[in-house]
Amino acid sequence: MSTRESATARQAGRPRSERAERAILEATLDLIGEGMGIAELSIEAIASRAGVGKTTIYRRWSNKEDLVVDALAVLRTPMPPIKGESVRDDLIVMLTAMHADAVDGRNRSVMHMAMGESDRYPALLAKFRCLVLEPRREALRAILERGMATGELRADLDTEIALATLNGAVIWHCKWGGGESGTVLAPRIVDQLMSGLTG
Amino acid sequence: MSTRESATARQAGRPRSERAERAILEATLDLIGEGMGIAELSIEAIASRAGVGKTTIYRRWSNKEDLVVDALAVLRTPMPPIKGESVRDDLIVMLTAMHADAVDGRNRSVMHMAMGESDRYPALLAKFRCLVLEPRREALRAILERGMATGELRADLDTEIALATLNGAVIWHCKWGGGESGTVLAPRIVDQLMSGLTG
Repeated sequence: MSTRESATARQAGRPRSERAERAILEATLDLIGEGMGIAELSIEAIASRAGVGKTTIYRRWSNKEDLVVDALAVLRTPMPPIKGESVRDDLIVMLTAMHADAVDGRNRSVMHMAMGESDRYPALLAKFRCLVLEPRREALRAILERGMATGELRADLDTEIALATLNGAVIWHCKWGGGESGTVLAPRIVDQLMSGLTG
Repeated sequence: MSTRESATARQAGRPRSERAERAILEATLDLIGEGMGIAELSIEAIASRAGVGKTTIYRRWSNKEDLVVDALAVLRTPMPPIKGESVRDDLIVMLTAMHADAVDGRNRSVMHMAMGESDRYPALLAKFRCLVLEPRREALRAILERGMATGELRADLDTEIALATLNGAVIWHCKWGGGESGTVLAPRIVDQLMSGLTG
């Protein structure tokens, strides 16, 4: 069974409009992932790749930027469930999920392209920040604040720096470091961050 | 005096071939910084922007990828001098320099574009890693290893994770965090990393 056939089979139970919407979002991600810049990206090209008419796209999205933000939002895996028992365990769960996002080829390619073009598309960047980034950052911040309250983390924690360090370490290591799995990498990062470099 | 005239005045003392080389590298960076993908980038476009003939480019670079790597290499500011007295101070100096690289508009735009396309240009990525990234990473690693030897850092430090954390925190905070200067941000990162999140 080809990829297209299995995708069709999986989606057979969904309403037609939802199938079209998913195809449009996937077509947008494929085109960006293949190196098409946002300036080049056209509703025509997306419609053609998705196998739908242009009016189907315009019925749902009034402009290209809104469509790209929605496509970026579906690209990220859903946020993982947080147990709320141990700050260390919850941070590891979050970082493992971030790692899964960061190592996916198309995902990485699309994110870099979107970030590289963000200066030219400030509205796109603002929506991306609000829809995709902030919910994840808030989830991580909530874990840190819980740790400050329970005493698992220092009470005077600089949460902004902690967020940058946790996020940045995963992204950087995925790009430039070794090829460890997320389940190996996440505890290495969390444990060293928690105990500190001086020990 | 226009930008072009002042640039000409500054460069008047340099040999002609060096001036042409600099103009070619700057033209390459300008075009990528303006959103031109590496696939679109042509020797013709670079020659036209730099005001030189195509043969001048081919005399120095046999292909586009080598030219792009050299352009990326000149984009980064030189590595700062390291005093070698305090690991904390040296890490702050390194992170402040990394921050200066990360906040420059064209620099950031070019780096994102290059990283986004790196899957399609593995040779470019390999050369970039070797010429640009590794010297900076080695300088940072040398500071960490000195700290492990002097006792300023824990003897069992996971240096790969420490490198990812230091680098990643700067890049992430520049992109998504507040607008602090590097001299404010770098000590916040280094001090919290050294003492740890548990305190």
